Amino acid sequence: MSSSADLLAPTDTFARRHTGDHAAETAAMLALLGYPSVDALVDAAVPPHIRRGPLNLPAASGESAALAELRSLASENKVFRSFIGLGYHGTHTPGVIQRNILENPGWYTAYTPYQAEISQGRLEALLNFQTVVTDLTGLEIANASMLDEGTAAAEAMMMCHRLKEGDPTALRTFFVSASCHPQTIDIVRTRATPLGVEVIVGDHRTLALTANCFGVLVQYPDTTGSIHDFEKFFASAHDAGAFTIVATDLLALTLLRAPGEFGADVAVGSAQRFGVPLGFGGPHAGFLATKDAFKRQMPGRLVGVSKDAQGDPAMRLALGTREQHIRRDKATSNICTAQVLLAVMASMYAVYHGPAGLKEIARRVKRLTELLAAGLRAAGAKVNAEPVFDTLTISKVAAARVLAAAEAKKFNLHRVDDTTVSLALDETTTVEEVKILLTFFNESASLPAADLPASIADFRAPLARRSAFLTHPTFDRYHTEHEMLRYIKRLEAKDLSLIHSMISLGSCTMKLNATSEMFPVSWPEFGQLHPFAPAEQTRGYQKLFRDLETWLSEITGFTAVSLQPNAGSQGEYAGLLVIRAFHESRGERHRHICLIPTSAHGTNPASAAMCGFKVVPVACDANGNIDVAGLRAKAATHAHDLAALMVTYPSTHGVFESSIKDICAAIHAHGGQVYMDGANMNAQVGLTSPGHIGADVCHLNLHKTFCIPHGGGGPGMGPIGVAAHLAPFLPGHPVVSPHSKIEHQKSRIGAVSAAPWGSASILVISWMYIRMMGPVGLTEATKHAILKANYVAHRLAKYFPVLYRGNAGLIAHECIVDLRAWKKNGVEVEDAAKRLMDYGYHAPTMSFPVPGTFMIEPTESEAQSELDRFCDAMISIHGEMQAVAHGESDKTNNPLKHAPHTAKAVCADAWNHPYSRETAAFPSPATRAAKFWPAVGRVDNVYGDRNLVCSCLGMEAYTTPVAPG
Amino acid sequence: MSSSADLLAPTDTFARRHTGDHAAETAAMLALLGYPSVDALVDAAVPPHIRRGPLNLPAASGESAALAELRSLASENKVFRSFIGLGYHGTHTPGVIQRNILENPGWYTAYTPYQAEISQGRLEALLNFQTVVTDLTGLEIANASMLDEGTAAAEAMMMCHRLKEGDPTALRTFFVSASCHPQTIDIVRTRATPLGVEVIVGDHRTLALTANCFGVLVQYPDTTGSIHDFEKFFASAHDAGAFTIVATDLLALTLLRAPGEFGADVAVGSAQRFGVPLGFGGPHAGFLATKDAFKRQMPGRLVGVSKDAQGDPAMRLALGTREQHIRRDKATSNICTAQVLLAVMASMYAVYHGPAGLKEIARRVKRLTELLAAGLRAAGAKVNAEPVFDTLTISKVAAARVLAAAEAKKFNLHRVDDTTVSLALDETTTVEEVKILLTFFNESASLPAADLPASIADFRAPLARRSAFLTHPTFDRYHTEHEMLRYIKRLEAKDLSLIHSMISLGSCTMKLNATSEMFPVSWPEFGQLHPFAPAEQTRGYQKLFRDLETWLSEITGFTAVSLQPNAGSQGEYAGLLVIRAFHESRGERHRHICLIPTSAHGTNPASAAMCGFKVVPVACDANGNIDVAGLRAKAATHAHDLAALMVTYPSTHGVFESSIKDICAAIHAHGGQVYMDGANMNAQVGLTSPGHIGADVCHLNLHKTFCIPHGGGGPGMGPIGVAAHLAPFLPGHPVVSPHSKIEHQKSRIGAVSAAPWGSASILVISWMYIRMMGPVGLTEATKHAILKANYVAHRLAKYFPVLYRGNAGLIAHECIVDLRAWKKNGVEVEDAAKRLMDYGYHAPTMSFPVPGTFMIEPTESEAQSELDRFCDAMISIHGEMQAVAHGESDKTNNPLKHAPHTAKAVCADAWNHPYSRETAAFPSPATRAAKFWPAVGRVDNVYGDRNLVCSCLGMEAYTTPVAPG
Repeated sequence: MSSSADLLAPTDTFARRHTGDHAAETAAMLALLGYPSVDALVDAAVPPHIRRGPLNLPAASGESAALAELRSLASENKVFRSFIGLGYHGTHTPGVIQRNILENPGWYTAYTPYQAEISQGRLEALLNFQTVVTDLTGLEIANASMLDEGTAAAEAMMMCHRLKEGDPTALRTFFVSASCHPQTIDIVRTRATPLGVEVIVGDHRTLALTANCFGVLVQYPDTTGSIHDFEKFFASAHDAGAFTIVATDLLALTLLRAPGEFGADVAVGSAQRFGVPLGFGGPHAGFLATKDAFKRQMPGRLVGVSKDAQGDPAMRLALGTREQHIRRDKATSNICTAQVLLAVMASMYAVYHGPAGLKEIARRVKRLTELLAAGLRAAGAKVNAEPVFDTLTISKVAAARVLAAAEAKKFNLHRVDDTTVSLALDETTTVEEVKILLTFFNESASLPAADLPASIADFRAPLARRSAFLTHPTFDRYHTEHEMLRYIKRLEAKDLSLIHSMISLGSCTMKLNATSEMFPVSWPEFGQLHPFAPAEQTRGYQKLFRDLETWLSEITGFTAVSLQPNAGSQGEYAGLLVIRAFHESRGERHRHICLIPTSAHGTNPASAAMCGFKVVPVACDANGNIDVAGLRAKAATHAHDLAALMVTYPSTHGVFESSIKDICAAIHAHGGQVYMDGANMNAQVGLTSPGHIGADVCHLNLHKTFCIPHGGGGPGMGPIGVAAHLAPFLPGHPVVSPHSKIEHQKSRIGAVSAAPWGSASILVISWMYIRMMGPVGLTEATKHAILKANYVAHRLAKYFPVLYRGNAGLIAHECIVDLRAWKKNGVEVEDAAKRLMDYGYHAPTMSFPVPGTFMIEPTESEAQSELDRFCDAMISIHGEMQAVAHGESDKTNNPLKHAPHTAKAVCADAWNHPYSRETAAFPSPATRAAKFWPAVGRVDNVYGDRNLVCSCLGMEAYTTPVAPG
Repeated sequence: MSSSADLLAPTDTFARRHTGDHAAETAAMLALLGYPSVDALVDAAVPPHIRRGPLNLPAASGESAALAELRSLASENKVFRSFIGLGYHGTHTPGVIQRNILENPGWYTAYTPYQAEISQGRLEALLNFQTVVTDLTGLEIANASMLDEGTAAAEAMMMCHRLKEGDPTALRTFFVSASCHPQTIDIVRTRATPLGVEVIVGDHRTLALTANCFGVLVQYPDTTGSIHDFEKFFASAHDAGAFTIVATDLLALTLLRAPGEFGADVAVGSAQRFGVPLGFGGPHAGFLATKDAFKRQMPGRLVGVSKDAQGDPAMRLALGTREQHIRRDKATSNICTAQVLLAVMASMYAVYHGPAGLKEIARRVKRLTELLAAGLRAAGAKVNAEPVFDTLTISKVAAARVLAAAEAKKFNLHRVDDTTVSLALDETTTVEEVKILLTFFNESASLPAADLPASIADFRAPLARRSAFLTHPTFDRYHTEHEMLRYIKRLEAKDLSLIHSMISLGSCTMKLNATSEMFPVSWPEFGQLHPFAPAEQTRGYQKLFRDLETWLSEITGFTAVSLQPNAGSQGEYAGLLVIRAFHESRGERHRHICLIPTSAHGTNPASAAMCGFKVVPVACDANGNIDVAGLRAKAATHAHDLAALMVTYPSTHGVFESSIKDICAAIHAHGGQVYMDGANMNAQVGLTSPGHIGADVCHLNLHKTFCIPHGGGGPGMGPIGVAAHLAPFLPGHPVVSPHSKIEHQKSRIGAVSAAPWGSASILVISWMYIRMMGPVGLTEATKHAILKANYVAHRLAKYFPVLYRGNAGLIAHECIVDLRAWKKNGVEVEDAAKRLMDYGYHAPTMSFPVPGTFMIEPTESEAQSELDRFCDAMISIHGEMQAVAHGESDKTNNPLKHAPHTAKAVCADAWNHPYSRETAAFPSPATRAAKFWPAVGRVDNVYGDRNLVCSCLGMEAYTTPVAPG
């Protein structure tokens, strides 16, 4: 029995809900592994010389107490009405979307849809998103989301850069309109620098294009609210050999001529105002659309339609060969986690409103803006000329006085300079608010009600939109809430997520995303703040950031943390840029060699390439460890130019390498910096740390280690921690400085995300996790992650060889099991992956880092019973593989080759298989108790890439492709 | 194009999301029916002489504006820490339960689980609930929830009354301990009066039981916090021939000896503190457990285990023959809608914590209470003697001063009298709060920390619990959040709800439960208030009640509304009691004849019987209308004794009877009152009203007409509206008066629900609905309900005769389609109902009011596309029936007789049917696009009733029943 003091502590403790405290289960797992305690196991697995002391973090708080504490912190944020604009606008999130997508674990706990057969729901929603973007931009192809508008613009620039690769003379300059959003300009600058590209910021109307300019970027409508006709400018840009990029606004495009119709090669922007809360900067889905001809140079994920084994239409991620996980340093982008959940929400907003509804919203915004402009002019203010859509810039005013008047009414406007103010209206603006806005400029002003026309005029030519959009039936069917609800639920039912079973994706750490962590995301005090709101209104957020920076510094063993990178890829990029800036500050700009072990994630070389680094691979030995001698030799060879080593710890082979401290020392000895990839932090927290090991910088995937859900492929958050010498170089921001101290403003690397603190609103999730777990809970979680991984490895090792092991034959938090031997019998690792679906499981990470293997990471959040169900499925599949090998099953007509089996296939009148329907559909007791049915049969990836269809067409179009490959 | 003013109105209008505004669909439906407009159709369908003028209600508000208005209203409620107790306690709702049950339409939009095959999820959760209750009370059988603790106690009294029916001399008195909660005593008194039972309130320790006492009711622990050993008292009660009832507390029972072990015949109580928010009084699940021998006299729903067509275990509602829908005025209770959603939540709370976790919570509460008692005594206060669990009564204090001190700290205690205060601790209480509580009694008091024992002592014999509870594996498996989440989701996936398809249950009005209506239910300002919180803290609620009373008065055409009845059945009961009190006030207590048409819901006669009325049935004519001549004759015959007519309008035959005004006049002419059943209000709102028609009182099912979701079988709300002459008799409450005016306190009928405003927290749903729809939207909804019902009737009439029609061959908002003709071919209406499941549909209301028919009510919230999918399914089933009739299908081995088909059955290796698997599982294009699989095959009801199993046993027990029937 516990002590009396313990017994008076709150009973809603969290760690046992996250990690479990089932003593009998722990004992059983330890018994199998032959250790007397979890500590004994961990002591054997983790090299003693890297162990750290206890975490210095606040003690764990009960669930309700943590929520109360965060509630109190939230109350220090002031929810003003925002008219700041600059790419972030108020929007009504339809309740049916908020509750059934944003707040629904059936959607938010899903993984990236690599396993297409069990991801058809979000693939369809993403196809809708792509359709929204292509239809509204008038371009041919759009991807399934970018991280934000600013990085989308930067990616567009880099894409144009790649498209001109054969023409080095044309690669020197890139033009950006000064009327783009300031954060967009800053991010483009940040990205251009390592490429050696000079960014020219100016007025497109007076620009003399030169032959060394490979692209131009303008904004439509622009940041001041003006709307330009870019047709002639784009024609002249094309004449000069430059690509044309438009940053634009989806709502405005419902009324404005589409960029594709006036010569844009690329359109980028944010889908935030399509129903996604402001969230103090994110997460939101950015977008990028372009011409079909450029599709192989597009960054980001792309959903396309193919067909399944039965010949039925089936969606999947297309043209994967562009991406970092395959192309590594030659990839079109380093993006891995995107913004799927937010792209899904935005697409659903378009489905809910349909084209007429969207136009209705846009027309109302436009008319309110015109009314306000008329009122302002009548009151003597100087306002930018019409046409306008939602934004007005009022000059020759005392900005301080106007903003003070607005503040008194709890309105935020944007101060451009001392005598200029801008403001943007949106879907949520009311006539009453417009009247109040007027009074800030002239207390006695009123709206010109008398001359209201009886109808609202659309834009005039050449700006008027003439083309139809969203003509697919999907955008006409679901306008009542019942129909919308059922559509969302039908799609949800097609996707396997953590609500069904463990998703043991090695290196992805699919752990519990607890409800108490998710609740605060929906609180208005976190959701309804504009990222550029005045600091005195965001004190709650500031405290949250300070807490998280302090806690993550303690956890990583570093001095400072930047919360800006809004994905792991952006963290890597930011971390490497910091290293680059550090070298430059010491007069060592020439250091550009980046050593990367061959086992690294593809994102590492892709990020390094974006920083202008040259990737030099480092081999691994037979035990999966970095070849230390080889590494020393390469470091020595490149001593003069050595910039960095990128290393993952524990290694992607799932092993705590003993030599890690020596490796770090070797890099330092040659003037290099050590970048530690945070993908495997779940095996470090509380036991060791990147700082303790000797790294200089690391990123953290908060969506892996710190419980932000994967959202079906995003959002993520990729903050970086750095040692003291690198702190002065952490990212800045052109509008709001994310740093309280300003001394290092000049050395900072510039913005890497559009918002100062990235996807701020989901940081509450990690805050709650750390607050509820406390130092003991976090450390126990790491220990149990190691225990459970070793348990799975032990159970499976009798059937599948476990490839790499460390001390005492133990692994870290994940293991690689080898299926290569079965290839000779005609059974591929993919067959096992697809067959796992029939058992109700998502496959582990497949063929990374070793082809023909599964990398399995169960995490601490799974009960032994669930680990056993998964192991039983793997062992049963092993039996099916043996049956093929022994000739008991047919070589091609067996349950592995035909997996996954859909209900339609199993219930078909025709059954042409030597195995039974029951074997196909109900291969385990767990499936008989609760069956998850894959929505389609095995998807034909090659067919889809050859016959690329990336938007909603009539389903008949999918079966008779326009251009056979 | 709309006018400019319209175009400036907010675009997030709600009516189009609820009712739809798809012009092409409306036109198509009207064209089929042959009417030029919806108004023309409605003018033809509704008798002109009953039409009313426009509703005088506030104009519709956009979704966000309505939420903002309610948010502002909510901010007038003050969320104090409640230590009031009296059956309502603070509790931590586990996040995973809140988000995935309370806030999840997959759970809250389901219907009562009459169709067992597509309700196995909530049936299992309810079986868990029954297990929790039987295990903790130590009794043999428990039902699947009561409406609240007070009515559960009253139902227990009535049950004992029934058990003594053969012994009229023993039926005169019923003893209630004065230490029961005051609202329980009041409800028991209310219920006893019409039965002619005298309630004796006193001290059980000094009671001399007489032979005319049929039962005793005590509380354990009692309302003052004292805990008595009732063993001897119960033995003496049994000796005197009285049944013994204990009102008790589930959390206390984890430590206290179970009532069944010291002689209780019945245990009742509330499961609120098992994770269900206070909600200012509700909704919560009450419970009632008793001995197996009394099961056929139990009130309320009972879940039992039976087997399906394949012999597998399958749950369903058991012993339905006790209930009002079958037994009518001989039923064991009038309860129809219960508290399923809340019972599910409470059962999940027990699953989440398990027996050890529940004990841990209880021990902590007990220890904190003991600490506080010790501190109080040390500070010189007089506290009730130990043993105590959670409640203390402190006497000889200045109550006003103590409460003022508490108020300053935002704590609420209970004022017993001028010198006595009581308080109750709970799961959410902290040590810090206990210290603060102490200071209210003595500013310098502190906790006796020095003498804290090292462990927490349990109760001593004879009060100590010795028996184990919740030993079933279900209560040991799901203690991590992942496992809990998956368990909840697995159960959800077994149940068909409105997230899948239309549920066209005639007379149940399964319409949209919009998200914006549901959001506020989770707001702490509505959820965290104790029902007896001081009025100055509940001003927001008071305004909400005033709004709703005003609006519902306008809608019903009455003068006053009582929001207290927390289910339709309670509304009926309250309405009839009001009529009874009215007659009594005029010296006509003898009026006891209640005329009820034979087509009435079973609840009507059951309610009438509870009021001591004698039911006299009135026949209907061939057109489904009340036989007016017959009614006049009966009214005249009983003129002296006529109490009331209970009538549903439009009739349960789905027709607007033209004679309704005459009928009301005939009743009035003979001194009777007209009670109008509100089940069909969805066809009246805005077109006519009970008051306009001439009724005197009606109840409203807010969970039908006003969008409170059905919750899988509750909660509901059944407020009543009354004409001016009945207003003085509306229900009162012994603790908090629901009426601002006190002039009629003496004439009031007493409490009918435990809380003054019933299930107050879900009233926000109806408030939002009315506020967002406005007078035009509400009226349009009624019109579209009529349009859509007529469209369905028209489409189906070619296949199934539509039994009753009114003016111009039109129906009201529902229709009865006749399947009786198929019986001669061996096809029963049940076969069609079960076959509908294979098509993804819940059957319409079956065999009510006419056996062998379906009563179909589509409601206004369904799109034409959904109506068509349903009609297509019905027509396809008609084809299958024809095939049987024509001999093309086998008489017994056909898809109708074997419906529903489970995945397991369809995928079985053996397929012994002449029809195909595809026909079985995928009979329509809609099912091929999205299939809902019934979890079990057709359930054997008779087997289950013969072999009654009503709690979780090992599944093996279900297949080898203890007592073969």
